[in-house]
Amino acid sequence: MAKVGVILSGCGVMDGSEIHEAVLMLLSLSQRGATYQCMAPDKPAAAINHVTKKDEKEPRNVLAEAARIARGEIVKLSEVKGDQYDAFVLPGGFGAAKNLCTFAKDGPDCELDPEVARVLTEAHQARKPLGFACISPVIAAKVFGSESVKLTIGHDEETAAGMTAMGAEHITCDVKDIVVDETHRIVSTPAYMEAKNLTELHLGIDKLVAQVLEWAEGEELA
Amino acid sequence: MAKVGVILSGCGVMDGSEIHEAVLMLLSLSQRGATYQCMAPDKPAAAINHVTKKDEKEPRNVLAEAARIARGEIVKLSEVKGDQYDAFVLPGGFGAAKNLCTFAKDGPDCELDPEVARVLTEAHQARKPLGFACISPVIAAKVFGSESVKLTIGHDEETAAGMTAMGAEHITCDVKDIVVDETHRIVSTPAYMEAKNLTELHLGIDKLVAQVLEWAEGEELA
Repeated sequence: MAKVGVILSGCGVMDGSEIHEAVLMLLSLSQRGATYQCMAPDKPAAAINHVTKKDEKEPRNVLAEAARIARGEIVKLSEVKGDQYDAFVLPGGFGAAKNLCTFAKDGPDCELDPEVARVLTEAHQARKPLGFACISPVIAAKVFGSESVKLTIGHDEETAAGMTAMGAEHITCDVKDIVVDETHRIVSTPAYMEAKNLTELHLGIDKLVAQVLEWAEGEELA
Repeated sequence: MAKVGVILSGCGVMDGSEIHEAVLMLLSLSQRGATYQCMAPDKPAAAINHVTKKDEKEPRNVLAEAARIARGEIVKLSEVKGDQYDAFVLPGGFGAAKNLCTFAKDGPDCELDPEVARVLTEAHQARKPLGFACISPVIAAKVFGSESVKLTIGHDEETAAGMTAMGAEHITCDVKDIVVDETHRIVSTPAYMEAKNLTELHLGIDKLVAQVLEWAEGEELA
């Protein structure tokens, strides 16, 4: 039974992890027989009121907000080692582009959260499969761009150009599908970059999880 | 195509709507061809840090937090009429027992949020089907107890006794199943009162949604 790390960035599409994407990842992991552990950086980040779209007065803690998706069962990313899990997956949401890296503000010149960069690099060096949904492939482009990793964020040309500038090979992809980089064991899917509803969202996310587990379980057997 | 109102109470198992339950309701509604509108009371409520389990310094607005689950697409419950939708469903989470009624504190002597009571009563009078998951059947017990409505919260004896004290007939039920009150068009499922994982959770929630839509769509054809 594979144990998968789920790297969250808060709780809510505008300032954290996209909730539907995160939950559908957990659902597919559960239905496909894997266990999971949610994790997030322990740091403050700006919070946005999801009705008014304005900044909240106070920032919120990324770990504490992500713990809402995890029902309180969460660990600090700083305590995670990349070879400790059989795979890692990342949902999107603006938190992925604001709290895990600064792509939303800085584009291809973005900086990575150091713990995110460390865990993903450790995992990749240990040949652990990685899955990125929605906007989170920009993180993979920044970490693994020098390896010309194949990624998708769907059809958004500006974001794709940013990923190409970081060294990645961007492949356009529909919401129900995934882009598989077999060499690097990295899979990505557009999710809410393209999805118009949860039915569509589920198809791509479930394929991503299936691919991650196929790699992870192949490794276990090896 | 049925249009279903989803009544939320915030965002997070400890102080709002249980996120997995809410998202799986939305998934099943989408997969089964319905549309939905999320809604919540526009009022403050105590917020709990989901890591430390302690109260946050400031309360949060129930509508704004629920909007995180709804990706910003939410309406105030005060602006909803009970005959305006084909059905209503309610996920659990402590918010259902703290923000939509006061059952968590007051048990069977609880008070209902007046907008929740109004919308559910209007809907019921218009023969709209209602679905309650997890702890939210305590709300149905309070609103419809005088009609001896059949409900379940699973196997928890103390909560069941509270529901019986409000006039409901409690029927024990496993996580993968639902309790159907055909007369009143009310269906309930234990969800995370019993579920040990998302696979189990999904089975009961999906049955609940299927039953709600069967009633709602039968009504449309009538």
